[in-house]
Amino acid sequence: VRVLIAGVGLIGGSLALALRARGTHVTGHGRDATRLAAAVRAGVLDAICEDLAEGAAAADVVVLAVPVGVMRAAMAALAPGLAPGTLLTDAGSTKGSVIADARAVWGDVPANFVPAHPLAGSERSGFEHARADLFSGRRVVLTPLPDTARGALAAAHALWEEVGAIVVEMTAPAHDAALAATSHLPHLAAYALMASLARRADASALWPLAAGGLRDTTRIAGADPALWRDIALANREALRTALREYRAVLDGFDAALERGDGTALAAVFEQARAARAALSGP
Amino acid sequence: VRVLIAGVGLIGGSLALALRARGTHVTGHGRDATRLAAAVRAGVLDAICEDLAEGAAAADVVVLAVPVGVMRAAMAALAPGLAPGTLLTDAGSTKGSVIADARAVWGDVPANFVPAHPLAGSERSGFEHARADLFSGRRVVLTPLPDTARGALAAAHALWEEVGAIVVEMTAPAHDAALAATSHLPHLAAYALMASLARRADASALWPLAAGGLRDTTRIAGADPALWRDIALANREALRTALREYRAVLDGFDAALERGDGTALAAVFEQARAARAALSGP
Repeated sequence: VRVLIAGVGLIGGSLALALRARGTHVTGHGRDATRLAAAVRAGVLDAICEDLAEGAAAADVVVLAVPVGVMRAAMAALAPGLAPGTLLTDAGSTKGSVIADARAVWGDVPANFVPAHPLAGSERSGFEHARADLFSGRRVVLTPLPDTARGALAAAHALWEEVGAIVVEMTAPAHDAALAATSHLPHLAAYALMASLARRADASALWPLAAGGLRDTTRIAGADPALWRDIALANREALRTALREYRAVLDGFDAALERGDGTALAAVFEQARAARAALSGP
Repeated sequence: VRVLIAGVGLIGGSLALALRARGTHVTGHGRDATRLAAAVRAGVLDAICEDLAEGAAAADVVVLAVPVGVMRAAMAALAPGLAPGTLLTDAGSTKGSVIADARAVWGDVPANFVPAHPLAGSERSGFEHARADLFSGRRVVLTPLPDTARGALAAAHALWEEVGAIVVEMTAPAHDAALAATSHLPHLAAYALMASLARRADASALWPLAAGGLRDTTRIAGADPALWRDIALANREALRTALREYRAVLDGFDAALERGDGTALAAVFEQARAARAALSGP
């Protein structure tokens, strides 16, 4: 099996490392030739391809690990080389937008395209942070369409299971609504928290007083702004719904504080604590 | 030096461990006799006192490490036994409220009372999580008043420096405004995030899809609801100010999403990322 990975960052680089460790030949494509050459020297890639269509024509599996904001352009570039028997999959954080991108490029979504989202991102980006075990035990969500080919779907399962992931299937709208809540909204919350502190007149006096709680709560505010701008826009309807629900809880906090209603505050805090306990892990 | 600690939880228990490790005799007071006895067996305390006034009369230093919601009651209970030469200090998360409590109990704030806040809390509570090195390298904020006795202030510095803390001084209003931003607001943000997810119709489907970002962002939503209800109420004016600024940024996100304004989103994300980078530590 020969795999082409477009976009050799944290996700694409980690997939490359994991596949190479299992003997798979991995070719990489990216915008920056200098960084790609560095990725080859670092042992992340076997080879580089400059032309996506040529690379796709030579591959059994094509993985688009580019930011969602450039997914459509990458699809358009590889489309002339994509054979019907080649698995095309992606690693985008939003699935409705990626399906819309495919529809825009091909008219219909190709039967050999299996939209996928490995839940393994972090605030770090770049292949320098890539790890062969990044997907080990992590979930990968596949959002096949009614017309997705059974063979392509099976190949997508096999690809991600080979690198240790737990593969689940759901519809793209269900994925996008869930990820708006579990990932995209937390990023907005963390960015907003950090930005609101930065705007204060006493901002420079705040940082020495920051304890672990603020650090935890804002860790993902260190994530790449351009990447998250694109994700937010790509999933904006579901994200606005989640954001509305979040703001409603905050509005309720403000009202409870105004009237000194500790009972109301404690009830929501308790609901939150119980839900947090239902999340596994620390 | 004989120290009395009222409230043997994470903070009081850690202070007890740190002082005992340096040879200081530590007596503990608390509401729950069974838990206090367990703290003695666990080596956290030398002795127990049942009556706060008696305990205060026998101590050189009295530390109120009780939740801010019961600070006034604890002061009233110990007041009959407090000698003018005894250092009284506390570990409350809000300082304006604690000073108001002292004024309510004594008429004027006693010259031997030095309000203090060790920035060492976590989402864990109880002496079972206490550690002798909890304060090592952590900041402790003292908020002395114009009438605070120099000797008491020096003794408070010595107490916290002895257990490894970096002691800083500021006014109570400056402390409360800063901590509203760096600690109390992040707790509201985390509680609200977790509560808003818990209220969704698809809540049970969300938890398996939660990645590290959600876990980090909501870790402090595991904190004690009653404790944080009291802190929020005790600092509600400064907290409402910080909450208003936070909600304004979120309102801006929603407006930017509505009009598809990626430039506006990315600008705030970048401001947040730069500020997060200014916070030391991971």
